[in-house]
Amino acid sequence: MPNSDFSGKTIQQLDAQDPLAHCRERFVLPDKRIYLDGNSLGPLPKAAIRRARDTVEQQWGQDLIASWNSHAWIDLPFSTGEKIAPLIGARPGQVVCCDSISVNLFKLLCQCLQMQESRSVLLSARENFPTDLYIGQGLEQLLGSQACQLVTVSEDELGQLLAGDVAVVYLSHVNFRSGRLHDIAELTRVAHDQGALVIWDLAHSTGVVEIELDAWNVDFAVGCGYKFLNGGPGAPAFIYANKRHHDFLSQPIKGWMGHQAPFDFVEQYTPASGMASFLTGTPPVLSLAVLDAALDEFAGLSVADLRHKSVALTTLFMELVSQSEELQELECRSPALAEQRGSQLAYSHPRAWEICQALLEAGVIADFRSPDILRFGFSPLILRYEDIADSVARLRKVMTGQSYLQPRFAQRARVT
Amino acid sequence: MPNSDFSGKTIQQLDAQDPLAHCRERFVLPDKRIYLDGNSLGPLPKAAIRRARDTVEQQWGQDLIASWNSHAWIDLPFSTGEKIAPLIGARPGQVVCCDSISVNLFKLLCQCLQMQESRSVLLSARENFPTDLYIGQGLEQLLGSQACQLVTVSEDELGQLLAGDVAVVYLSHVNFRSGRLHDIAELTRVAHDQGALVIWDLAHSTGVVEIELDAWNVDFAVGCGYKFLNGGPGAPAFIYANKRHHDFLSQPIKGWMGHQAPFDFVEQYTPASGMASFLTGTPPVLSLAVLDAALDEFAGLSVADLRHKSVALTTLFMELVSQSEELQELECRSPALAEQRGSQLAYSHPRAWEICQALLEAGVIADFRSPDILRFGFSPLILRYEDIADSVARLRKVMTGQSYLQPRFAQRARVT
Repeated sequence: MPNSDFSGKTIQQLDAQDPLAHCRERFVLPDKRIYLDGNSLGPLPKAAIRRARDTVEQQWGQDLIASWNSHAWIDLPFSTGEKIAPLIGARPGQVVCCDSISVNLFKLLCQCLQMQESRSVLLSARENFPTDLYIGQGLEQLLGSQACQLVTVSEDELGQLLAGDVAVVYLSHVNFRSGRLHDIAELTRVAHDQGALVIWDLAHSTGVVEIELDAWNVDFAVGCGYKFLNGGPGAPAFIYANKRHHDFLSQPIKGWMGHQAPFDFVEQYTPASGMASFLTGTPPVLSLAVLDAALDEFAGLSVADLRHKSVALTTLFMELVSQSEELQELECRSPALAEQRGSQLAYSHPRAWEICQALLEAGVIADFRSPDILRFGFSPLILRYEDIADSVARLRKVMTGQSYLQPRFAQRARVT
Repeated sequence: MPNSDFSGKTIQQLDAQDPLAHCRERFVLPDKRIYLDGNSLGPLPKAAIRRARDTVEQQWGQDLIASWNSHAWIDLPFSTGEKIAPLIGARPGQVVCCDSISVNLFKLLCQCLQMQESRSVLLSARENFPTDLYIGQGLEQLLGSQACQLVTVSEDELGQLLAGDVAVVYLSHVNFRSGRLHDIAELTRVAHDQGALVIWDLAHSTGVVEIELDAWNVDFAVGCGYKFLNGGPGAPAFIYANKRHHDFLSQPIKGWMGHQAPFDFVEQYTPASGMASFLTGTPPVLSLAVLDAALDEFAGLSVADLRHKSVALTTLFMELVSQSEELQELECRSPALAEQRGSQLAYSHPRAWEICQALLEAGVIADFRSPDILRFGFSPLILRYEDIADSVARLRKVMTGQSYLQPRFAQRARVT
């Protein structure tokens, strides 16, 4: 049983010895269903219910405009950022929450081009999450290909094809389809050797993979709040900027919240110092407050423990699938080695969509990713080892019962 | 009593005959306080409480990722947009909710420059809301002054100084300080005569002023959800784009939500048709859902009625202040003619900050705007005429009681 440390232990023993077992009760989980989709939308922390009610009913309803100060709404981009910082190996003062990953990536790509006056190439991988590529394409169109050129290569070639004209390399830490985990430290080193900057997209890794941005000398990063951070649907994203660049910060979407003195209402923009300069418009307080509450669930937890359990969960799932004769049609698309994958697994099957729907009927919530990927996400805060065994058993039942062949599963929804 | 139609009527009669009187009970309002700050943060609609609870506790908590379809989260940018459309005189298919005003203005300024290939000037007024100017400054810095040059003039000169090099004129419909209302139809006509496009910022006018974007031939507009629309703190903003431009839409922050087929996850960006192309990242569902509920309060109301009452409220307030000997130190900075002002009033006083704080103690919530402006916002959905009389009485008490001179009011908070 490679990559696992649970040989010889029963599922019950694994759960009994799980140091994160107590976390599960802090979340709302639907009855009799197993949620293997934390990498699309994390489950609801009970603390978020209280915070949402308080923010809407007391802070907005009763305290109204005064809440910007009295309930520190104005500080939310920073307070949430500081709660994310320890999860990504960032010392204080380097993370702020705002906008979406897409908007933040636009800011950072411009930031990098501006720091690299004589270079114009944005280098990324074809396998990167599409929105990250679209943002590069949009910027190239806006600035013209003389000033900005997006070059994409296969993710395997990224390190080799890094040449002296590259202004910035940007990539998702975990591939959204395969779950492949990239080596931030190594690719950052290679990029820096060539004089390039790096931006890492931590959407699928924050909260489940050990990340040491400061130690790895990373320049910039983005990530989202709604996956393994459990911040709620469309929760605001975050930006990390290494302190050594703080004297050179200049992002292009200059709104009043990034001003040195927004409430002086002066005509001329002067950026705030540090991370505040990445802010643009008025923050979406309800969404940010809920993310802030969700992040409290990570207080006192070690990322090493989260990663350890995440690896054990994916490894167990893989083992159980590979041991099942009924599941041999499912082809694993994720790396076999635990150190090369994030907290998700991808299996391809020509009828992946129908299987995903039949699984849903059987009480297992997974993801379909076009054209033929069945994707499972493993949140170490809420999943028990027995859930893994149970979900593979249900998967087996679906695959043998042929229920996924029924025509009622053939209709395709817009979002999965 | 110029500009008013309540001569001879008592305050009680005005309230008894108010066709919008029934709206007040649909909002949570703090006890014994008068809220004259709806133009900074609208009050909490009771329906928003139910919607926030349902969105968090049922949709997110129980239905999880399926809610993107089953609760139409994915449609929220459009459904909220269509609810705003009738308030701004837009036929369907021209309004979408997303991001902040600042981010949306960035998109639209780029959109206009792209449509006006041979023109590079962004023209605005020095008195415009600062974030609108900052966005222009940031864009000039990003694109270079050859491609983009921000020119600001006095708001009185805007029409005269519109020359043939202007790509786009952009301005707030209502001046955030003075409450002065600009003539959209006239300035749009002048701009078009010179071949310029227009973007109107409707932050302080949507929901309280009659706006006919289609009829006035406006090109583009932005606005926010958290003022007179009562969408909650930092509620998402909106974009209007006139249908005649829909074949030429191309904004620069191209994220997956603006893609023709976001869930195909293809490498190349192809914009969705129509307003969807203005979307960028994953929408902040909690904030958007609450805005959506708040907008239902406008269903069945006529903007003419809202405007009529708004004018009556500001006029009554002005009359009562001008009739009060104790209030002669307050200098009105808003237009005397009702048709030239929005739903807010500004008074200058050297000690405006202290007066604002003393008023707060006296139960009247107003705004201070640096350096010396006391600002009152009048929401026709929640205010009674008796609130106006009462608030002026309390203001009189503050000004005569000298309580505003006490040192405890001298400390200045960051946000007001």
